[in-house]
Formats: sequence, C-alpha cells, structure tokens
Amino acid sequence: MNRHGLLDAYGCPPDLLRDASALQTVLQTAAQAAGATVLWAHFHTFGGAGGVTGVLLLAESHISIHTWPEHGFAAADVFVCGQLRLHAARRILEQSLRPQHSEWTEHGRGAFAPSRGVPSVEKFN
Amino acid sequence: MNRHGLLDAYGCPPDLLRDASALQTVLQTAAQAAGATVLWAHFHTFGGAGGVTGVLLLAESHISIHTWPEHGFAAADVFVCGQLRLHAARRILEQSLRPQHSEWTEHGRGAFAPSRGVPSVEKFN
Repeated sequence: MNRHGLLDAYGCPPDLLRDASALQTVLQTAAQAAGATVLWAHFHTFGGAGGVTGVLLLAESHISIHTWPEHGFAAADVFVCGQLRLHAARRILEQSLRPQHSEWTEHGRGAFAPSRGVPSVEKFN
Repeated sequence: MNRHGLLDAYGCPPDLLRDASALQTVLQTAAQAAGATVLWAHFHTFGGAGGVTGVLLLAESHISIHTWPEHGFAAADVFVCGQLRLHAARRILEQSLRPQHSEWTEHGRGAFAPSRGVPSVEKFN
C-alpha cells in the first residue's frame, strides 16, 4: 500500500518559512529518515515577504512543501510507497517546522489485490 | 482556502502509464485548465516495465503523478491556492488517464482566520 500524509503546520516562524535552503534541508532530512531515495529537488522562493514552494521527487514518490509566511503556515505532503518510514518523515517535519499547532491526515493510495495485481473490486462497490 | 485533491485512477492503459512525455502533457494541460502558472517540471521514467514519477511545481503549489503500469494504477494530486479551477484540472486528469474507475478526495489546507491573518483557533479545539 502506498501512503500519502498531509501536514498542515500553523504558527511556524515566518523567517523559516522564507528560507528555501533551510526548508530544503528539512525535507532532505525527512526523506532520509523515511529511507527514501531523492531523485530530484527544486525549491522556488517568491522573494520579499513571500514564501517558498519546493519538492523532492523520490524514487518512492515525493515530499513537497508550500509556505505562507504571512500566516505562519506551511503545508507539506509526504507520499511514499513500499516499506518507507512515513512517520519518521512526519516527525522530522513536525519538529523542524516548529509549529504551534499541526494537523496530519493520512491516506492509503491504490488498493491493489495482491494475489491478482489488479485493482481491488471492493474499492468500487 | 487552499485545496488539495487526490486522484486514484485504476485500470488505466499501461502503455500510457510508462510514457513520461504523454503524462507531462496531461499534467501541463491540467495546469492550464486550472489557470495555474508552471514554474518547473521534472518527470522521471523508471524504464522497462516501470512507471513514471513526475511533478509540476506551480506558482500556486503543485501537480504530481506516480504510476504503476503493472497495476494499471496512477496516483495524482493537485494542490492549488487562491481562485484556481481545481475541478477543471481534475476533469482533465480523469479524462486523459482513461481509468476504468477513479476516486477523488479533496482537502482544505490551512484554515486562516481572514480578519486576523492568524490560524483559526477553531481548528485545534
């Protein structure tokens, strides 16, 4: 089963949310904690009071972050397949972004019937 | 409010799910339909019978896709902020990936209190 976790982090330090280099390090550390292989990274800074939007493309899917410093808000997501340690990545993000509050939601992605390698019919009834 | 839609597409043509160029076109078309500005794109092909993993980083967040041709399965997500047309992007993805079945789930990301520019306390109680 593939798993996709969404982290909404509120009350983060605005300076951190404008620092693309620091945020890239946070995501790289999260990827490492998960046991993921980073294929590609790109981080974009909007400049001035603006935020950062960035992504690590993984051999096992992706980790992204989008920040709104003016709201102290960061939205991250971690999509992993296989045996990766999703919650290790979650802990790194939650600790590193230093939110006053955060919310995490998690989704299974793709319900394969293991014995057949085809979509599970049960998903659609 | 920022919105994040997750699309699980089952029973897609395996050849399409191995075609990074075609999938990049699908995502670019979805971004255009949403009214998004693409900042950067990267698509990785695992080769042979393997799938594709790719992302468009948008000025308004991101669109990603990860495919498992051996299962006819594609997982896409569309994260947009502001007034972008999320459901126009969804329709492009659903039509273009040609799934036999698909599931869409949608999440609000970041509950700001507009009058104060700070996190809404109600989210945490």
